[in-house]
Amino acid sequence: MSTEPQTQWTHDPAPLLAAGSGFRLDAVSPRSTPGYVGNKKSGRKDLKACSGELDELQERLFAAHHDTKSGPSVLLVLQAMDTAGKGGIVRHVLGSVDPQGVELAAFKAPTKEELAHDFLWRIKPRVPGPGMIGVFDRSHYEDVLIGKVRELAGAKEIERRYEAINDFEAELAEAGVHIVKVMLHISPDEQKDRLMERLDRPDKHWKYNPGDVDERLLWPDYMQAYQTAIERTSTEAAPWYVVPADRKWYARLAVQRLLLDALRDIDPQWPDADYDIDVERERLAES
Amino acid sequence: MSTEPQTQWTHDPAPLLAAGSGFRLDAVSPRSTPGYVGNKKSGRKDLKACSGELDELQERLFAAHHDTKSGPSVLLVLQAMDTAGKGGIVRHVLGSVDPQGVELAAFKAPTKEELAHDFLWRIKPRVPGPGMIGVFDRSHYEDVLIGKVRELAGAKEIERRYEAINDFEAELAEAGVHIVKVMLHISPDEQKDRLMERLDRPDKHWKYNPGDVDERLLWPDYMQAYQTAIERTSTEAAPWYVVPADRKWYARLAVQRLLLDALRDIDPQWPDADYDIDVERERLAES
Repeated sequence: MSTEPQTQWTHDPAPLLAAGSGFRLDAVSPRSTPGYVGNKKSGRKDLKACSGELDELQERLFAAHHDTKSGPSVLLVLQAMDTAGKGGIVRHVLGSVDPQGVELAAFKAPTKEELAHDFLWRIKPRVPGPGMIGVFDRSHYEDVLIGKVRELAGAKEIERRYEAINDFEAELAEAGVHIVKVMLHISPDEQKDRLMERLDRPDKHWKYNPGDVDERLLWPDYMQAYQTAIERTSTEAAPWYVVPADRKWYARLAVQRLLLDALRDIDPQWPDADYDIDVERERLAES
Repeated sequence: MSTEPQTQWTHDPAPLLAAGSGFRLDAVSPRSTPGYVGNKKSGRKDLKACSGELDELQERLFAAHHDTKSGPSVLLVLQAMDTAGKGGIVRHVLGSVDPQGVELAAFKAPTKEELAHDFLWRIKPRVPGPGMIGVFDRSHYEDVLIGKVRELAGAKEIERRYEAINDFEAELAEAGVHIVKVMLHISPDEQKDRLMERLDRPDKHWKYNPGDVDERLLWPDYMQAYQTAIERTSTEAAPWYVVPADRKWYARLAVQRLLLDALRDIDPQWPDADYDIDVERERLAES
């Protein structure tokens, strides 16, 4: 057990954010800060205060398990409407850990080749190997979100996918992948402000895409698709967490805690030396 | 031209570190700090002070050129004896920039499949695409370093490789890849201290490999191989920089400056919007 720094967390957010039975997305306030009583300023301080433990656990995980054939890993799946802050999570939560232990996979609109295969085909090779933390910036869930809203696949195929996802994730969990699925939940008003900022600032124009407004106009359909996806795929092996994200600082803090929980659960230990320390000390001294 | 923060740099280190004609590796002191008059404390401060410019230039590069078919990129090649601090460069110099714009490739001992191909076969797919910063943690230079010292290839093949490398890198440069080749230069005494620390600390045992001492015993051969490789492959398109690395803080500062130079040279600009800003503002307001 590591000593925890003093923070403004009053409760472990995991059970508060987990989408259990009877979960209703429309009951989650995007501006709320479940389990946390601080503000933006304390939030930034606490993020930094907890980053040391995250770094050490990541390094232990890497030290103990990378380059091995089997062993635990962590997979953070990030899903959200545009501007919800996926990139900020990667940068500010995972930015503190050693880059060599993190694999980032961003899934964009599928290519022709990808479309010619099952929707999980492009996902499987990107699952983090033993000792690694993988991050999916969008994921196979696009295929039951935009895939459903835009009717890119028929209703029957969408149905099949929920089951395929559950089977796939159960297999991964069995193999040692600790899956943390996060929906960053923003409000349409907050998104409007963030998109407007992109239009107002020349250094943000490149982040704006007219298609973002097209998707925005389908907000209720997307929320319904998220509701269904979360209902159908929040399993014991791979639960969904819905993280209020109108306050970026809270979303970052909360995802950091979810990652900490996963890593504490793995509890990776520094591996024993696979050589004779005294012999090596002598060899080195003589060299 | 961006305004530069006040730092303890007295000279641009690039020309001081570049391996020009008549370069002698044995004339470079691993404890020296060319171009810099500060100490460890100021070094850390200055690294932070300059990270803002690095971040902005990286973001501009990414914004302007990623997802395009051609355009500039940066490739940092890191070569060094064990413990010289390659990992620390990645973490502390590149740790500040957006991870989505950085591609890290660590080249270990080649696999059987890799050995069945030309030595550049595994390298080519890892060259950073437009808009990206790529980092090679070890590289194709291993094939003329350990490859030469350990006689993994015949003398004639090693000879061929210098030329193949120069051709390859010239092609990359032609295609827009700004190549920054860095040898982190440590002393054998410093390496001994760093290896001993790995033996002394249980949380560092995993970083120690008895093979490191085997290579260490061949130090003069390695220095000769570096000397020759640098002589033969320091070209205008892809010069070598030899960075004294006994002081980790200096090596990090210096590599940061070399990257800044490459990025300033590219001078990436925020791309113009490829949509009508006023139209989008209206669409968004109404949505």
